[in-house]
Formats: sequence, C-alpha cells, structure tokens
Amino acid sequence: MAQNQPDVIFVGNKPPMSYVLAIITAFSSGSIKEITLKARGQAITTAVDVAEITRSRFIKELKVTKIAIGTAEMPPREGENKSRMVSTIEITLLK
Amino acid sequence: MAQNQPDVIFVGNKPPMSYVLAIITAFSSGSIKEITLKARGQAITTAVDVAEITRSRFIKELKVTKIAIGTAEMPPREGENKSRMVSTIEITLLK
Repeated sequence: MAQNQPDVIFVGNKPPMSYVLAIITAFSSGSIKEITLKARGQAITTAVDVAEITRSRFIKELKVTKIAIGTAEMPPREGENKSRMVSTIEITLLK
Repeated sequence: MAQNQPDVIFVGNKPPMSYVLAIITAFSSGSIKEITLKARGQAITTAVDVAEITRSRFIKELKVTKIAIGTAEMPPREGENKSRMVSTIEITLLK
C-alpha cells in the first residue's frame, strides 16, 4: 500500500485546489513525509500557488526544502520541425 | 556609478528577452556579481524562463544560488472589497 502513494505530483492545467487536495491526501496516508511537485511552462505558476496555498491554509508545518529550475526539450508541434525548450520547476515539500 | 546598477530586477509582462538583456547589461558593468529576479503571479513562469535562457544561452557560468517562493497580499480590485493573495518568486543569480 505505502509504495503506491505518489511522492511526485505533476502539476498541469487543473485548478490549483485539485493538486492541493492530492498533497493533503498523500500526506494524510501517514507513510509519506516528502512530496515533490513538478511542473513546466505556464504550470510553473500553478505549482508555486499549490505549494503556497497548501502551506498557508492547510498544513502549517509544511516546509519547502528544495526548489530547482531547469529546461526540458519538448518534441516539435505538428507541422513544425524544431523542438522547443520549456522551463521546468521542482518544489520539494517536507511535512 | 556602481551603486546605480540594479541588483534587483522585477519581472513583469514584457517578453523574456528584455529581462535577459537587462541581466546581461547589469553583469557586464563589472561591478555586480549577484542579481535577484522578483516576480509574482503569471510572471513567475517568465522569471524562470529568463533565468534559464540567460544561463543556457548567454552566461554559461551563471549559477542559481537561491530560489524562494512566498505569498504577497494585493489590494482589492476596483469594485471588490477583498484583498487577493498572489504567489511570488525570487531567483538569485551569481556570476
């Protein structure tokens, strides 16, 4: 059971609260102490919102232990032939 | 002269390259070793893009020494009476 709980949550286009709930659920299982949020492109802002909402409203003792930024290569869009570079972020949360 | 060079750059709605150029200009003055990018809301993604573009394409030796996220309170929009919370990011770059 414990191994099935996610310790990485990919943040995409859903509203921030759905990711906040995923974090709360994962931590409340009791077996997880650390969760990493991963996002890229416009979802980077959402990932920061998710971390801040979770920390300020729901899990006061939550600590941001690591933030890393990077660049990922995305395959070209249909009809284009150049791959695109997209920024990424990883935010690690410790309860 | 040296004191007039900005060591904080506020990232807003302009295209990423205008901030990249501001960083390159500030570093090339020679008197600055460290610059902090500050952004909030949707500009958070732009700030990450700016840091990544500067590092990968222009100043290879650039290091991200610190990334901090937080929440700021914004005054209510006209006609509303509740202040809004907005996420913030600070990215410190060392040459």
